[in-house]
Amino acid sequence: MKILEERILKDGLLIEDRILKVDSFINFQIDVELTDEMGREFARIFKYSGATKVLTVETSGLPLAYAVARHLGDLPLLFAKKYKPNTNVDEDYSAEVRSFTKENVNIIRVPKKYLSEGDKVLIIDDFLASGAASLGLLDLIGQAGAECVGVGVAIEKEFQGGRALLEAKGLRVVSLAHITRMKDGKIEFHYTE
Amino acid sequence: MKILEERILKDGLLIEDRILKVDSFINFQIDVELTDEMGREFARIFKYSGATKVLTVETSGLPLAYAVARHLGDLPLLFAKKYKPNTNVDEDYSAEVRSFTKENVNIIRVPKKYLSEGDKVLIIDDFLASGAASLGLLDLIGQAGAECVGVGVAIEKEFQGGRALLEAKGLRVVSLAHITRMKDGKIEFHYTE
Repeated sequence: MKILEERILKDGLLIEDRILKVDSFINFQIDVELTDEMGREFARIFKYSGATKVLTVETSGLPLAYAVARHLGDLPLLFAKKYKPNTNVDEDYSAEVRSFTKENVNIIRVPKKYLSEGDKVLIIDDFLASGAASLGLLDLIGQAGAECVGVGVAIEKEFQGGRALLEAKGLRVVSLAHITRMKDGKIEFHYTE
Repeated sequence: MKILEERILKDGLLIEDRILKVDSFINFQIDVELTDEMGREFARIFKYSGATKVLTVETSGLPLAYAVARHLGDLPLLFAKKYKPNTNVDEDYSAEVRSFTKENVNIIRVPKKYLSEGDKVLIIDDFLASGAASLGLLDLIGQAGAECVGVGVAIEKEFQGGRALLEAKGLRVVSLAHITRMKDGKIEFHYTE
């Protein structure tokens, strides 16, 4: 998606060729118009996926996941949380997720009652790197006996291996900005439409 | 807002007359259509506020804040985070927030570069109870020398004192479901339009 790639080149901040910060339009401050455009694009791409629910994990994928759910005809949006609040009296599905940027392990959870066997779940997130977050969400979906109909991410860093792991499970993986290399302060994309 | 009040009565879960769980449409699973309607309503209410930016705190106020920003003409949306990620190399504004439901204290932060003196900030959140979260956000706004033009929340529990604290600071506080009492498993609203 050209407007996203251009925005990354303009406002993204590359740290040590390893971490890409997009705080000014995705991670802290959100460009609402761009997010809505991305939501519209994913709705176009996954229109025939049969998705009945959109799933993400807190926090920064939430606005994009909301926009996708909205453009797919107001699908229910479910987000996994990274801890167990003490107001939660329900049974949960849970999975472990190792964070690449924060170098820690989180437990992510969703209440069992919001994921069930008939659900066709579209995973949406802001980043795909090692794939750990998506694999954790996929684990939750599997525990519920539900089906994952695809993974959509705003920004993919292919060289960190996430796509390979997800495609090996037969999943359709779509990223709007597909980065193949970050080197010497430069960002290279797979292609520009 | 009648549709929200009715939804709370239908799907809200009251625990020990103290905690109101709205996990099925706001806090875990999000009703996207309802959220968009709430966003539209807040945009109508705050149309003349002069807001240049919408501010919330992660996590569950984020979809609503996004919907408000969208309906106010794609205003930038800023969210405060509850910890300092190690990818953050910027200077932050920070404030303490005591959580009512989780009974703990968090530090919330936004990078200084996203809040500045000219900003007119509309605070949006899912709940207003003790007002701790809004006061923390107000603190961040004050540190930046920016102005708060109002506080909009989906659900207010007036008896927990938040409105009183915020109005004492001269702020305009608007809630879409204004709860005056939760007693014997029953929820009472201030009025129904």
